[in-house]
This record gives sequence, structure tokens and C-alpha cells, in this order.
Amino acid sequence: MKSYHANLGAGIDGIVLRTHDRPAPGPHQILVHVRAVSLNFRELSILRGYYPLPIKPDVILASDGAGEVVAVGQNVTRAKVGDRIAAAIFPHWIDGPFGLEYSAQLGGSLDGMLTEYALLPEDAAVPIPDHLSFEEAATLPCAAVTAWNALCGSAPLLPGQTVLILGSGGVSLFALQLAKLFGARVIATTSSADKAERLKALGADEAINYKTTPDWHVAVRALTGGRGADVVVEVGGAGTLEKSIKATAAEGQISVVGALAKETSTINAGAISATVVKLHRIAVGSRAQFIGMNRALAMHRLKPVIDRVFPFGDAIKAFRYYEAGSYFGKIVISNG
Amino acid sequence: MKSYHANLGAGIDGIVLRTHDRPAPGPHQILVHVRAVSLNFRELSILRGYYPLPIKPDVILASDGAGEVVAVGQNVTRAKVGDRIAAAIFPHWIDGPFGLEYSAQLGGSLDGMLTEYALLPEDAAVPIPDHLSFEEAATLPCAAVTAWNALCGSAPLLPGQTVLILGSGGVSLFALQLAKLFGARVIATTSSADKAERLKALGADEAINYKTTPDWHVAVRALTGGRGADVVVEVGGAGTLEKSIKATAAEGQISVVGALAKETSTINAGAISATVVKLHRIAVGSRAQFIGMNRALAMHRLKPVIDRVFPFGDAIKAFRYYEAGSYFGKIVISNG
Amino acid sequence: MKSYHANLGAGIDGIVLRTHDRPAPGPHQILVHVRAVSLNFRELSILRGYYPLPIKPDVILASDGAGEVVAVGQNVTRAKVGDRIAAAIFPHWIDGPFGLEYSAQLGGSLDGMLTEYALLPEDAAVPIPDHLSFEEAATLPCAAVTAWNALCGSAPLLPGQTVLILGSGGVSLFALQLAKLFGARVIATTSSADKAERLKALGADEAINYKTTPDWHVAVRALTGGRGADVVVEVGGAGTLEKSIKATAAEGQISVVGALAKETSTINAGAISATVVKLHRIAVGSRAQFIGMNRALAMHRLKPVIDRVFPFGDAIKAFRYYEAGSYFGKIVISNG
Amino acid sequence: MKSYHANLGAGIDGIVLRTHDRPAPGPHQILVHVRAVSLNFRELSILRGYYPLPIKPDVILASDGAGEVVAVGQNVTRAKVGDRIAAAIFPHWIDGPFGLEYSAQLGGSLDGMLTEYALLPEDAAVPIPDHLSFEEAATLPCAAVTAWNALCGSAPLLPGQTVLILGSGGVSLFALQLAKLFGARVIATTSSADKAERLKALGADEAINYKTTPDWHVAVRALTGGRGADVVVEVGGAGTLEKSIKATAAEGQISVVGALAKETSTINAGAISATVVKLHRIAVGSRAQFIGMNRALAMHRLKPVIDRVFPFGDAIKAFRYYEAGSYFGKIVISNG
Repeated sequence: MKSYHANLGAGIDGIVLRTHDRPAPGPHQILVHVRAVSLNFRELSILRGYYPLPIKPDVILASDGAGEVVAVGQNVTRAKVGDRIAAAIFPHWIDGPFGLEYSAQLGGSLDGMLTEYALLPEDAAVPIPDHLSFEEAATLPCAAVTAWNALCGSAPLLPGQTVLILGSGGVSLFALQLAKLFGARVIATTSSADKAERLKALGADEAINYKTTPDWHVAVRALTGGRGADVVVEVGGAGTLEKSIKATAAEGQISVVGALAKETSTINAGAISATVVKLHRIAVGSRAQFIGMNRALAMHRLKPVIDRVFPFGDAIKAFRYYEAGSYFGKIVISNG
Repeated sequence: MKSYHANLGAGIDGIVLRTHDRPAPGPHQILVHVRAVSLNFRELSILRGYYPLPIKPDVILASDGAGEVVAVGQNVTRAKVGDRIAAAIFPHWIDGPFGLEYSAQLGGSLDGMLTEYALLPEDAAVPIPDHLSFEEAATLPCAAVTAWNALCGSAPLLPGQTVLILGSGGVSLFALQLAKLFGARVIATTSSADKAERLKALGADEAINYKTTPDWHVAVRALTGGRGADVVVEVGGAGTLEKSIKATAAEGQISVVGALAKETSTINAGAISATVVKLHRIAVGSRAQFIGMNRALAMHRLKPVIDRVFPFGDAIKAFRYYEAGSYFGKIVISNG
Repeated sequence: MKSYHANLGAGIDGIVLRTHDRPAPGPHQILVHVRAVSLNFRELSILRGYYPLPIKPDVILASDGAGEVVAVGQNVTRAKVGDRIAAAIFPHWIDGPFGLEYSAQLGGSLDGMLTEYALLPEDAAVPIPDHLSFEEAATLPCAAVTAWNALCGSAPLLPGQTVLILGSGGVSLFALQLAKLFGARVIATTSSADKAERLKALGADEAINYKTTPDWHVAVRALTGGRGADVVVEVGGAGTLEKSIKATAAEGQISVVGALAKETSTINAGAISATVVKLHRIAVGSRAQFIGMNRALAMHRLKPVIDRVFPFGDAIKAFRYYEAGSYFGKIVISNG
Repeated sequence: MKSYHANLGAGIDGIVLRTHDRPAPGPHQILVHVRAVSLNFRELSILRGYYPLPIKPDVILASDGAGEVVAVGQNVTRAKVGDRIAAAIFPHWIDGPFGLEYSAQLGGSLDGMLTEYALLPEDAAVPIPDHLSFEEAATLPCAAVTAWNALCGSAPLLPGQTVLILGSGGVSLFALQLAKLFGARVIATTSSADKAERLKALGADEAINYKTTPDWHVAVRALTGGRGADVVVEVGGAGTLEKSIKATAAEGQISVVGALAKETSTINAGAISATVVKLHRIAVGSRAQFIGMNRALAMHRLKPVIDRVFPFGDAIKAFRYYEAGSYFGKIVISNG
């Protein structure tokens, strides 16, 4: 079996393809024939060497993958041979709030999914909705679960409430599609009329061009009768947090999805104390959240937005395409 | 101005139409020109004399009404002249869980809405969504708010979850329509193929005929892959509670809406201890819940189901029609 | 190594002591030298053959045990050799609400703790507070965790609130001791002046003799200025549930701890619909709740109440003593 | 009757004592003979002219007061003549989360309590625990309710958890005293050994001198075995927020109590995204929270810390003393 390994700090050039023996699962372990993988910004920051958590040397890349269970060890109850599964990024995080004891993660401190066969703890196995292909299912573990957690992991999102999403990255697109399942209204910020159209085609009720409307927080207030957004999926980080706070309703929820940019910046501390809001830093989500989200995807037959699929042998091309940044939807590597 | 008053225990025959001077609002009070009223089972139990809470002698009937604000007293901030409002049943219950100090209720310990002009505490005023007529808005305060509270007042209802409703009474129909806004799947029990069709036309995903399928809790389990319903809106009382418990998923929520039937019955206490579920007795809902629900109704332009509208002068005919029980949707008295 | 095995339905007479080879832990498994075990009513109902969940044939008895980790398998992160641990009854239930996928339990569908060496999934390992002996720690997994979950697993328990406990069984005593850590007031029902004294010595603010005061729910109302208890730890089942409901404050919480008595009885369904309360059937608690409770025990150096300790060789005597029912506190079997 | 009025922006020098007729309460209003008032930083920022919310011109000063009800208007149900009450700062905020419609506040957009007789909406009336004098009760509405909300308004605070308080201002001292009622451990930061002693005398488990230990967030981690504080009552604003975040446990709660300092400063946005925490900006608290807190105070007979009491005639001296800043506990103006 073959696997792509990271050489920390060496960037995409440092990725190495290596051959191994196929492992046998022990108690509480499963072996998965990986059929598809998707890319996230965390992969780039790991390759560039500034990911904030510990990374296993020579780690097999990629947190996000889906495939078929081909062998199970003793005492395994969460999966059986033949199951179509996606892997949960934090296999120890079963349910409840995040905790440090759950922080071991695939494609980080644990080996990841950019491999032909992945040996996983059974807890990582999350069944895939029937209507999704492996390519589609492989887009879910990081971006979709983060979006789901951002929408309903703290306060519940109710029909008639307003969700603000920023831009059209992976988490934002899932947050848009998922928020519509909750019966919520979605306001999106974006940088072009073209993207605004694509966001509206996915269900956005309003799109604000933040280039022509730099005070987009004022526009959000105007679009909500002065009330502000009930939930903000804040992916922009330093550059947007202060405006996001100003765009939020009283007691509204700002779900902060970590920006992994290298540069740092500051916000006015007064912006926090001037507004009665809640901020919650989101760390993907638990296995139980993944399962709950899948129930919603299955019922509504929701399809992820995929920009492009690369074959397993072209994984490095996929990384370069992703790094270039001109995509709308997820980049997938298929091992079909 | 004219008002219909109850003569407790004297039934519909005891209803009296009386003429009064139009009152002037004091501080924190508003005067509302009532334009429509809807009927609920509580009115029948008040007239029959077995409503469980204290009733003001000679009370003006009906908790549910909508109209236009025609005068406001000093210090009023929650309404102004010209506002289209519905009245909250428990005017003191602004937000948070129910409490005994909030138990004063319109058409009960306080005068109700079956009158031409109602003098109300400003806290009772809830703005009506623009897309609703007064007749439609008058259906909301008791049945719709109860349904909303039953769905999301305790645990949040998530897309992809399953809601079980029993029959086609006022609360059940609103629970069905509202559950669809949450992206939930709805299973309804009903007594005829005709009603099953009407329930499906309103959005029900499945309808179970409880006459031909008396073990409908088994059918609910089968329809949910063995899992059970996540939320049950339990309006049936003694006759159904035990089966409802058996139809509920682990840690699922049974929202018990009070059956006001005179007869009582028993349930097997073991049914409660055999299943890991939550029961929550629901008491309509708070003003904040009413406002939150209206936001959802407005966004989705949801329309209540009205069976029939009677003119103000035919109020007694409306009560008799309601008592006969052959309706599907709300009975409204209009004062056009 | 020796283990006590159940012969389902054969009662205490059917318990068999058997000798095995000591097993070696595989991936995600640990081997624990068990130093103490405590008994719960579930053991009796398993031996009598009417426990409601599936039991492994020839199961090693007892859910509750504590000991020292003597070996760990590959990939184990939750424990290391030398750790003093107690076992969580539901090893798969890490955090969040209970679910059927977590229902495998020690001393039930999985082998239990009445053995010299227990092979456990690492998820079962919960560190013991330093101030507790193995005998003391062995009392926690079932009764104490259930009490903790009953107090704060649904609604938070706040200082100044009132908790009602029924009798002096294992869960009730822990609920009493734990409720005092929350700053709550505790009212206990009991059957004798002697037990009333012991309950007060443990911190109960009030004790009601339910023999001389059969309408103890009225007494609870009187002791709370008419308000009722905020949390009821309902262990009595059919015989007490109706009165417990009547003793509960509006929106109060009744935590139903399953009575495992063979006989069943009924409650008036009207009692539920007449009172705005929440019932929550409690199923012990998660690993995270166990850990959270231990933090409280450690800070306050709280000591469980132990009635009597038997040596490992006298385990059958311990069961007979427990069955006789004349105890106040936990029965422990030590393998010191 | 006499009242002290603010002259916005004119500081303490601009305070004017004026004489009025005693008003008569209308419907839903009460008249209170004010017996004591306490001072908060909001009063200084109003006088200095930079309070962030709208202030009524010539407003009667002070949000915090307690007294006796001497007259009630029609339809008043929440108070009767002779009741000892404290005033809730936001009289419209009955329960649930804060909302803009509840933002009218005593001593701000509404007249305040530094008067002999206050005309209040009945919703403002909160009964005083029996064990507290008017002087003691007058310290509660702003600082104590804020502390209570900070501790349990979002996540529940559990026994065994750790609360971090910053300094010895009014909110911090109440947070310390209240946290001990929850069975929590309290770590306090302070600037001197003398204050550290006083904090420990009030129940603090640990005190960190932030002058000698400028990296106090590291010290908090060390004192909690690396875990961090579960709840931080963040009163320091810009100067401390970043360190507070770093001192907080995963999924811990930072309750941000608004610093009303004129100067602003910045925090590193990366500090928020680097840690999985929740921030909640706290706006005092609701009437229901005030009542719930009083239940805890009453049960535990907790006494507020009062630094000094001034007579009504010396109100301006009280303001000057408060402005000077050398106090430990609340400053009270008595009209005994």
C-alpha cells in the first residue's frame, strides 16, 4: 500500500510517496480501504510548518477521507466489514464539549487518510449517508462538521433566525447549505458579483460585496431591521472579527473558526465589551455531531460542492491547485 | 363596546353578551380593537367548569385574539397606536421557563379577547407578521406557541431529526407545519385515510392510521430504523403517553401538552423507568417564544390552517361548531 | 486469577468462582488489578434473572470496581501502568447524552469487576481522587455517578435551590452529600427517627418521616414556602412518582432513577399533565460526568458512606448481607 | 421629596439636589421609600459623559437601591405595601437572555434610586432576603447580579471547578463569595499581600500577586494542573483579556464584564483563535437571576462586603470617596 507523507516545513515539495505493508487491526481497530480524500487549509499549514498543534514526524497527510471497512479487530462494535465510512478527525472526541484529552487528530498527531489503507481506532468510523459517493463523503469531516458545530453546537439555530457567513471557503459553503436546512435566512459576504450569484444559487438570501461595501456590518444590520445576525460563522479572523461582532444581534453567537494564517493582527478590545454577544471558538466537532449532521444530509439529500477531483497519483497536483486558491468548493483526491 | 362573558359551569348556554364603556389605558397599558379571536379546548373546559386554574367570575372569554392598538397609556414602550398585534396568553411571562408568578392568563384569571376592545398590559402585545390577516394571527397565541415550545423549548430540534405528532388537533397541525421549517421529518398518527392525505398535504412525511395500526409505537420504531422519534408532541394524554414513551429515541424529548379531558387514566410507571427519555410538561410559551416563532412564520410565509370563520355576532354558533368536533384547523370569530 | 460468575436466574446460590489465565491487553486495552468492588441492586436483579438489558452468559459479576493498572496495550492514551482507576460502567459512553450505541456495560453485556484482574477498554479508566482508598473509590461508578447526573445532568443545580431525596439507598445518600457541595438545601424522606438523624448528620437540612407523614409531598411544599423542590432524585418508582411530581416546583426537574423492582404499578397520567415539570430518566452517567464528579469529590475531600467491607473470599456472604437490606451505605468487597 | 440629579459630563461637581412632589403610582407601578443606594462605576462614567448608552437629561442618579414599598397602583401583582425590595436595574428584563427591548435602565434612560421616593414599574421590585439590611441589599443590583450571571448565566458552574477572579472590585468580590456557594475553587489576582489576605479571608483558595507575577495566566495553569480555569470573571478589559483567555480551560467560559474605561486598547486576535473557549459579554442580569441569587444569599446568609456608609446628605462626599478608589467593598449612601 502507498501513502503520502509530509516533511514538516518543506511545503508541497517535501511530500513523499512511500510504500508499506498493509497492517492488521487489533482490538478496537479497523482497516479502511480509503477511496477519497479532501484537502483543507490545515494541510497547507502543516506542510508550511506553522500548524499550532504537535505533528507526528513523517505523518501520513490529510484529516479528511472516506472509504470501505475491509477488516476489523476484536471487540469492535462501531463498524463491520463492508461499511462505507468517513473518518472523524478527532477519533477520541465522541460527544460533548471538546477537551484536551480528545486532541489527537488524523493527519496530525496521528497518521491521516492520504493512503490506500488506513488503520483507525473504531471510534473514528462514521457511517456515510447512502446518497453520497466516497468523493462527496470525503469532503465532510473537517469543513462540514465545523460548519454544523458553528451553527448548532452552542446555541440552537432556529427557523427565522439569520446566519452570516463570510466568503466562499469550504466551511462557509457548508454553513450556507446547512443553515438553509435549519430554516434560517443566510446573508453572505463575498468579493465579486459572480461569486454572489453562485452563493445565491446555493441558497443565500442576500449577498454583500465587501469590496464595494467595506462597512458590511452596517449592511447586515440594515438587512435585519437593525437587529443583527443571530449566528455568525467567523472564518476571517483578525481582519473581520471586529465587524462581525458589530453585525451580531444581542446575545447572538459568533462561532470563531480558526484562521490559520501566519500573520497576526489585533482587534479593539472595546468591540467585545460594547456588545452583548457570545463568542465560541469551534474545533471541528465530535463524532456525535458528525452523525447528527449526516442524518440531516441524508434526509435532505444535500450534496457538497466539489470544485475538482484529482486521481490518487496526482495528489501533489491537487495540493498545488488548492494552494493557488482559485476554487469554489472542495478539492478531492480520488482513489476510485 | 360588547363582550362575551362566561358563566362558569353553565356551558355554552351560559355565555352572555354584555355592553361596557370603552376603557382608557393607564401607565403600561394599551387598548386594542380586537379584530379576530380563535377558540381552544381551554374555552370549553372553562365553560364546563373543570379548567384546573382559577377563573375570574364573569370573565370575558377567549385567550386568543388579534387586533389593532388604538390607544396607549404612559410609559408604554412595547406598542404604539396603529400596531397590529396578537395577545400573549400569559402577559407576565416574558421569557425563560414558566413560573407560578406568570400564571395570570387572558380569558382566565384576566379578561380575554372575545370583546370589541381589550385593555391589556403592554407586555401582552406581540407584533403580527405582515403576511398574516387578523383572522390568521388570532390562531397563534395558544396552539401555535404551544407547538413551537413543544418543538424547541427544551432541547433544540435539528434538521434530520424525527418529530411524532398525534392526530390533527390545533397544536398537532401547527407542530407539523413548524417542524418542517426546522428541516425535521414528521410522522403523524391519524384515524382515517382522508385525514392522512390532508396531513401529508401539509408536509407530513409519514402518516400512521392508529385504528388499523393500534401498535403505532412499533410502526414509529420501524419507520426510524429502530431509533424512535427525537421529539414527540404528546397531546393525547393518558390514552397515548405510554406508547409515546415507547416510540421515543434514547434521550428523546416528549413534550406533554395538557389534555384537558375530564376523565383520568393511568399509565404503567415502568414505562417511564424502562426508557431513557425526557418528558416536559409544556404550558403554552413565553412572549419571547411567540416573537421568535413569528420570525419563522414571517420568513417562511407560513399560513395557519383555518377551518371556518364566524362573525362576532355568531360567536355562540362558533362555540357549538367547535364543540361538535368535526373540524380540521382552527375556528375563528371575526370582528372584521 | 479468580473471578465470580453469574448463573442467570439462579440467584446468589448460582454464583460460581472460577480460575482463568491472566489476559494480556491488546491495542486500546488495559489490565487492572482489581482491589475493591461494591454492590448495587442491578447485581441482584441480574442474579434473579429480570434485569431489563441483555446479559452475557456466565458473566463476571459487578459493574463497580477500582484498582491499579498493571499493563497497557498499544495506542493506549487514557491510562498508564500504576494508575489508580475506577471503571466506568458504560465504557463507550464518553460524554454527551446517553445513546443505545453506548449501552454495553461492565458486569452485564461485558465482563465485570468481581475478579482479580480485569481486562478493560482504556475508555473505562477513570482516575481516582487521591484522598480515596480503593474501597471508597469502588462505591462510585454506579450510585455516585447516577446521583451526580441526577443533580446536574439536565438542568444545572444552583446554590439556594432545594433537592428532594427519597430514603437512604446508595443513590440517595450520594445525592444528599453531593447536593450539599452545590450549596443546595436537601430535604430527605425516611422511615425512622434513627435514619433521620443519620441523614441530618450527613447534611440533610430536613427529614420527613413518610410513615408518620404519608402526604410528604404536602410537607415538601410547606418546607419550601409553597414552591416545591427544584430537583427530585426519584428512586422510589411507582410508589412515589405521583407524589414526587406534586412536590416539584414549576419547571423543576425530576430525575428518575430506575427502580428495578419486579412488580409494576401505575400512576395517574393526570399528575403529569397537571404540573409544569420535567422528568428525565437517568442511566448512570458518562465517563466525563464521572471525571467531573471526581473533581468535586477531590476538592471537598468527600468520603462515601460504607456500611461494611467483606474480603474477596467472602463475596457470597456480601451478596447475602446486601440482599437482607439492613444497611446504611455501600457494601464493599475488598481484594486488598 | 429630594433627589440627586446628574448633569452629564459635568462630573461630580455637576450633581444637583432637587425637590419634587411625591408621585402617585398608576397601573403596574409602585412607589418605594428608598432607604439605601450603592455606587458603581457606571455612575462615574455617566457623570463624566462617556457612558455608552443613552442617558435621560437631568436623570436621577444611581441604578442600585433598596427600600420599602409605600404605595401600589392598580393591577400590581409583584409587590404590596410594606414589602422590602431592591430594584432591578433593567426593569423590563424579566428572564431569558438580554435583548435590546430590555435596555431601559434605572439611573440611565430611566430615573434612578438616589432619591427619597422612587416611582418604579412593578417589574423592578425584587424582594430582599430577610437577613440583609437595606444598606446591604442596596449593594446587590449591579455588582452581585453581574457576578451571579457571570458564574452561572451561560454554562452552569459545578462543584470542583475553578473560578478565576481579577482584582477586588465590586463584581470580583461578589464573584468570589458566590463561587464558594457553588462549591468551586477560587483563584484571585491582586496587587498586594494585604489584599491577598483579605481575599483569602473571604474564601479565595489562592491569590496571585499580578505585580510580582505578571505572567499570572501561567500561574493559573500551574495551580490547575495545566487545565486552566473553568470560569473567568473578566473585569479588567483590554489589559487582561488576552491573559485571561490563556488562563482558561478548553471549552471554559470567560464572562466579560464591561470595562467602562475611556481608553481603549487592542488584543491579539490570534489569542481567541488559539484556544477553544467561550466568551460571553455579560450585561448585569435579569430579574429572575436576581431572585435566584437572593435564594442562595438567603440560604447561606451571605453578607456583602461594605467599605463605608454615607448619609443621604453626604452623597457627593460618597461619590468623591468612590472616585478616589481606595476601597475594598461597596460604598453605600443610606437614607435610614
